[in-house]
Amino acid sequence: MKDALDLVFLALPHRVSMEAAPKFLSHNKSVIDLSADYRLSPDVYKIWYGAEHKDEVNLPAAVYGLPEIYRDSIAKAKLIANPGCYPTSVILAIAPMIAEKAIDTASIIADSKSGVTGAGRRADIALSFGEVNENLKAYKVNEHQHKPEINKILSEMGGKTIDVVFTPHLIPMNRGILSTIYMRLNKTLDTKSVVDIYKRFYKGKPFVRVYDEGKLPQIRNVVMTNFCDMGLKVTGNTVIVVSCIDNLLKGAAGQAVQNMNIMCGFDETEGLA
Amino acid sequence: MKDALDLVFLALPHRVSMEAAPKFLSHNKSVIDLSADYRLSPDVYKIWYGAEHKDEVNLPAAVYGLPEIYRDSIAKAKLIANPGCYPTSVILAIAPMIAEKAIDTASIIADSKSGVTGAGRRADIALSFGEVNENLKAYKVNEHQHKPEINKILSEMGGKTIDVVFTPHLIPMNRGILSTIYMRLNKTLDTKSVVDIYKRFYKGKPFVRVYDEGKLPQIRNVVMTNFCDMGLKVTGNTVIVVSCIDNLLKGAAGQAVQNMNIMCGFDETEGLA
Amino acid sequence: MKDALDLVFLALPHRVSMEAAPKFLSHNKSVIDLSADYRLSPDVYKIWYGAEHKDEVNLPAAVYGLPEIYRDSIAKAKLIANPGCYPTSVILAIAPMIAEKAIDTASIIADSKSGVTGAGRRADIALSFGEVNENLKAYKVNEHQHKPEINKILSEMGGKTIDVVFTPHLIPMNRGILSTIYMRLNKTLDTKSVVDIYKRFYKGKPFVRVYDEGKLPQIRNVVMTNFCDMGLKVTGNTVIVVSCIDNLLKGAAGQAVQNMNIMCGFDETEGLA
Amino acid sequence: MKDALDLVFLALPHRVSMEAAPKFLSHNKSVIDLSADYRLSPDVYKIWYGAEHKDEVNLPAAVYGLPEIYRDSIAKAKLIANPGCYPTSVILAIAPMIAEKAIDTASIIADSKSGVTGAGRRADIALSFGEVNENLKAYKVNEHQHKPEINKILSEMGGKTIDVVFTPHLIPMNRGILSTIYMRLNKTLDTKSVVDIYKRFYKGKPFVRVYDEGKLPQIRNVVMTNFCDMGLKVTGNTVIVVSCIDNLLKGAAGQAVQNMNIMCGFDETEGLA
Repeated sequence: MKDALDLVFLALPHRVSMEAAPKFLSHNKSVIDLSADYRLSPDVYKIWYGAEHKDEVNLPAAVYGLPEIYRDSIAKAKLIANPGCYPTSVILAIAPMIAEKAIDTASIIADSKSGVTGAGRRADIALSFGEVNENLKAYKVNEHQHKPEINKILSEMGGKTIDVVFTPHLIPMNRGILSTIYMRLNKTLDTKSVVDIYKRFYKGKPFVRVYDEGKLPQIRNVVMTNFCDMGLKVTGNTVIVVSCIDNLLKGAAGQAVQNMNIMCGFDETEGLA
Repeated sequence: MKDALDLVFLALPHRVSMEAAPKFLSHNKSVIDLSADYRLSPDVYKIWYGAEHKDEVNLPAAVYGLPEIYRDSIAKAKLIANPGCYPTSVILAIAPMIAEKAIDTASIIADSKSGVTGAGRRADIALSFGEVNENLKAYKVNEHQHKPEINKILSEMGGKTIDVVFTPHLIPMNRGILSTIYMRLNKTLDTKSVVDIYKRFYKGKPFVRVYDEGKLPQIRNVVMTNFCDMGLKVTGNTVIVVSCIDNLLKGAAGQAVQNMNIMCGFDETEGLA
Repeated sequence: MKDALDLVFLALPHRVSMEAAPKFLSHNKSVIDLSADYRLSPDVYKIWYGAEHKDEVNLPAAVYGLPEIYRDSIAKAKLIANPGCYPTSVILAIAPMIAEKAIDTASIIADSKSGVTGAGRRADIALSFGEVNENLKAYKVNEHQHKPEINKILSEMGGKTIDVVFTPHLIPMNRGILSTIYMRLNKTLDTKSVVDIYKRFYKGKPFVRVYDEGKLPQIRNVVMTNFCDMGLKVTGNTVIVVSCIDNLLKGAAGQAVQNMNIMCGFDETEGLA
Repeated sequence: MKDALDLVFLALPHRVSMEAAPKFLSHNKSVIDLSADYRLSPDVYKIWYGAEHKDEVNLPAAVYGLPEIYRDSIAKAKLIANPGCYPTSVILAIAPMIAEKAIDTASIIADSKSGVTGAGRRADIALSFGEVNENLKAYKVNEHQHKPEINKILSEMGGKTIDVVFTPHLIPMNRGILSTIYMRLNKTLDTKSVVDIYKRFYKGKPFVRVYDEGKLPQIRNVVMTNFCDMGLKVTGNTVIVVSCIDNLLKGAAGQAVQNMNIMCGFDETEGLA
């Protein structure tokens, strides 16, 4: 293997990545894996992806590549599990409230809406123009394979088991995910206070933009960028977060580059601004 | 006024209907009003529509034209407040659980997604193709004027004040509303039991179709029809309802015809099948 | 075979229809075939559909089911070749000028734009939302299998070989075909005169609407109807015709019903108004 | 006026540019004008834009900013009339045949299809999502204001008056123009020969890509780029050209930057690759 090679991006199907990654790691190359193969424990992986894990040697050292949460670990890692698109939009919208211990963690609902590219590019009648255009549907309600990924990271952050209700929807557009998150506050906070919590949490994180009170993001503000934009609103004891990403950038390839930048000591925004 | 005239549909702007309706009512004509003018109490109307009510004489006798809930009153009414599009999709999805007293009524979240025709036909840059296409946004989060209408009807049904969290979203498609409803159960019920509750509740209601366990509706199943389709799923103590309507039919003109059929003693499905 | 059965619609793949039709015809049932199997001569069929014709017995008696041209023959026929969608929109736009002998028949150009349902419903990456949405392409330029069908009918009408230039395009919408036709006049005519020619030609034809000078049709005017709408403009010695149909109705099933109505002696518009 | 300022892009409404440009020119600043104000002679301008020309002093020195045709003049110019979007896609598709004197110049037909952003961003019911989505129409048939611009440049190239037939269509997509051009050959040429003519003509022009025989461009190949892609086909004595551009880049801002690069002596592709 060429010495000139420092780092490999693996954009392989699930199950294939865990066969390829060890070969690069054994030659001391860094790996950023865009599949789900290094995101879950072997037992959870088996349930959701229907296969035994084949690389339990390297799995424990894999770092979840969400830089806004795990930047320090990413900087030292050799193996990155690049997050799924839904989890990126959902976890970033919830993390500040977990960190602040301000919500009832049993109350989290994530209602996500995704463009069609989130499903990949393939011949499938369910993805054909005639089926998707002028249509809208929920699918895999609370059964999507990204749910355990969301639960795992939030549980780690919260120090206890967290189980979100997660409903993905398919939207007639090419790119983008908008997630609307509902959480029950366990103390009295108004919208401004929550905005402040989010702004503090994401201070110094170049790819998260928290909107001022009264403003909400939309998909066109983030398409073709690596940003995750968020707007917030408190009503009664419920906090609502609207988060937007481009599923192909912050939700996939852009975040992978962001991780590379951190691993290689480059500026985090290199090639992404 | 011609004797041959029995019934009038008013498709007028808000504030204008309450000036026109009394004229027809005073000639003993029936009125089905598609505006919001007869849906709310004067004080709530003033808050959400910014105007004093001008027809407090007829307002008390107005019946909310949601036939699946108020069929008997509609049959006897002279003045119908035809429901808004969002309220139709949301109330029908919640009503059986209120009737069953099976949910914590403080826990209701309605995440609604609407095609563009819901906003009416007008020159508005926010509704232009270039803004709506390849975009997605939440708007008027918990501040939409259809929220008090939803709350009023659910509170009447529940016998106590109910305040839902309601988030509307704009989807790049012409027709249809899909609402995803989240409610916390106050007793242990599985999906099948909840499906049974809904099927019982809507038995004999020709325009609501409750799907079997494991099936979910999509917009294309209801577009160009007067149906409201519903799918259900229980996860933990949360019940999720997905409801779909064509906002221009069951959410507006179709429901108005359905009300007329009931008022005039025609078959409820006349002209709508 | 049931005596109660009078007429059969065959919506089968090409090559399969010509195996099924003879069975019904031999029992004296009428057949309306929506495939291409009875539209072309055996030799042309073989070139464009890649198969030998298997029913040369019945083929000669098949009538091309374009009622605005062949109404009398349709009324007497037992076997109808229901036209393709592109040919319907193109032939109707050209026929009056052929009949009038007003154009250079070597100069005809048909630039057609079709929604996605024209290609049928199937799993094909070229028809996936991600490929079709926000895209536009010409395809099978002058090589589409509907070209010989157009040429055959126009040649019959013109009494000589006519070969149009035909370019189909795929448009990101579900339904509808708009064809823009360019023909060179062989005499001096202004727009008004040409409009008169078309109105005369289509007089008494309930499903063709010729627009007045200065007006042009658009797809939304014909979607969900059996109409073919046409607008006309003369510039120099070129006449431009814009014709619009719903490819699933006037371009397929609607026209089949129209043919049935004529064959059975019903009102031509029965079930189609 | 700052000495540091070398060049100004004017993205002003028609009629306003010709008031602003002289001020910059009089201070010896270069001007690239994206309006139509410097594209036509005063008399033609008056007909199509309904106003007297107000800067006949500078108009004669204005160079039409289509670098593939006028690169040398652009390099020396102080005032550039940046081309319209339709003319860019149409002229580039025709120019090689004019240069080759291979066509009957009275036979040119340009059938153009444009996304919605070509019409600008404004509140206009004709541009609303509900009107444009699931619709398709021809408009301003042979009366679009870009027609005299096309005619002027082609006539200059051909050394005689050329008058194309030009039909624009509005397509339900955000970006992109696809033009299908039909021309009658005045000598016998096959597809391969015509492809060679185009490849020779555009040799060394970095933003035109001529496809090999049998290949056709589509909008997705050029969106978000400054390329004009072209595919060719000869049938009988007709040559068909399909050309694609992003109307906001090669059809507007991208071409303006390309012109700046040439005027300032930068690499022509700077900032555009």
